Amino acid sequence: MYKDLPPSTAYRLLESGPILLVSTGNDEQHNVMTLGFHMMLQHEPPLVACVIGPWDHSFETLQETGECVLAVPTVDLAEVVTKIGNCSGVDVDKFAGFGLTAQRARTVAAPLIRECLANLECRVADASMVDRYSMFILEVTRIRIDDTRAERRLIHHAGDGRFIVDGDTVDMGRHMTRWRYLMDK
Amino acid sequence: MYKDLPPSTAYRLLESGPILLVSTGNDEQHNVMTLGFHMMLQHEPPLVACVIGPWDHSFETLQETGECVLAVPTVDLAEVVTKIGNCSGVDVDKFAGFGLTAQRARTVAAPLIRECLANLECRVADASMVDRYSMFILEVTRIRIDDTRAERRLIHHAGDGRFIVDGDTVDMGRHMTRWRYLMDK
Repeated sequence: MYKDLPPSTAYRLLESGPILLVSTGNDEQHNVMTLGFHMMLQHEPPLVACVIGPWDHSFETLQETGECVLAVPTVDLAEVVTKIGNCSGVDVDKFAGFGLTAQRARTVAAPLIRECLANLECRVADASMVDRYSMFILEVTRIRIDDTRAERRLIHHAGDGRFIVDGDTVDMGRHMTRWRYLMDK
Repeated sequence: MYKDLPPSTAYRLLESGPILLVSTGNDEQHNVMTLGFHMMLQHEPPLVACVIGPWDHSFETLQETGECVLAVPTVDLAEVVTKIGNCSGVDVDKFAGFGLTAQRARTVAAPLIRECLANLECRVADASMVDRYSMFILEVTRIRIDDTRAERRLIHHAGDGRFIVDGDTVDMGRHMTRWRYLMDK
């Protein structure tokens, strides 16, 4: 079952540093790329910084449309994620080629990726660091999560195609005295 | 045994999004904070972007000295990492209070943290985004890793004091055709 989460809870998905897919485009024409260089920048409004450069086919579309979707894949997609990061949308329709399903988003034209655990709809909030660092600042406008999905383990790129899979969880919430206000969201 | 790694391999430690400790200061006076908002920005020279703001006691020292150490803790330090992130260096000597050992770095005055798996010595390469986003761009100048340490599992902050511990590794290196040049470092 799909469920909406408040955009302000983006940090629960992104701060942990999972490898991501990025979709750009619209219903008719879309592309997808793999993204490992990203971070939470601010809690509220929720801003995410990421590196997408002229070497990425998605770069031009992102600049033109100012919109994208950050999709959060799980471990069963590790091979697809790697292959997507090693070919170009110039040569391949990556949605079709890798069996991904484009679904309509609500706040942006770029499609959600149905096979992913979560999809974060984003608009470019600041492109002033693009020339210097290929860095886009995105604002998360909607989060859609697949709440009943069995496989929920994210993967973290340790470089060179090696992924670390989510293992145990350690809960230190009782020590979060300073950041308690975030937890009631 | 401690070993040096090329600074250009920083992405193998940082791209996976581990929670970090940041040390600032010098031999006599130093502070440590917890950092979850960071990303690899560029492979070569290795640049890291991170969010350290006026609400952090380390902010002022980082601005003044232009140097810090990003230390990579493992799961045995989860409680310490959380507590460090929930108190201020204004009130507490956090190295002493949390049993951390400051060791001399080589390229910066800020100390390494002996209890961590790896330490990345960094200097501020660009502070132009500090006013707007509290974002520092750091260049990694040296990496020191504890190569014989038994516990090597990093922790990834999923928000609110919940940490995901490194689990299995999945190796997709055979599909890394486009990024092969990075793997020979």
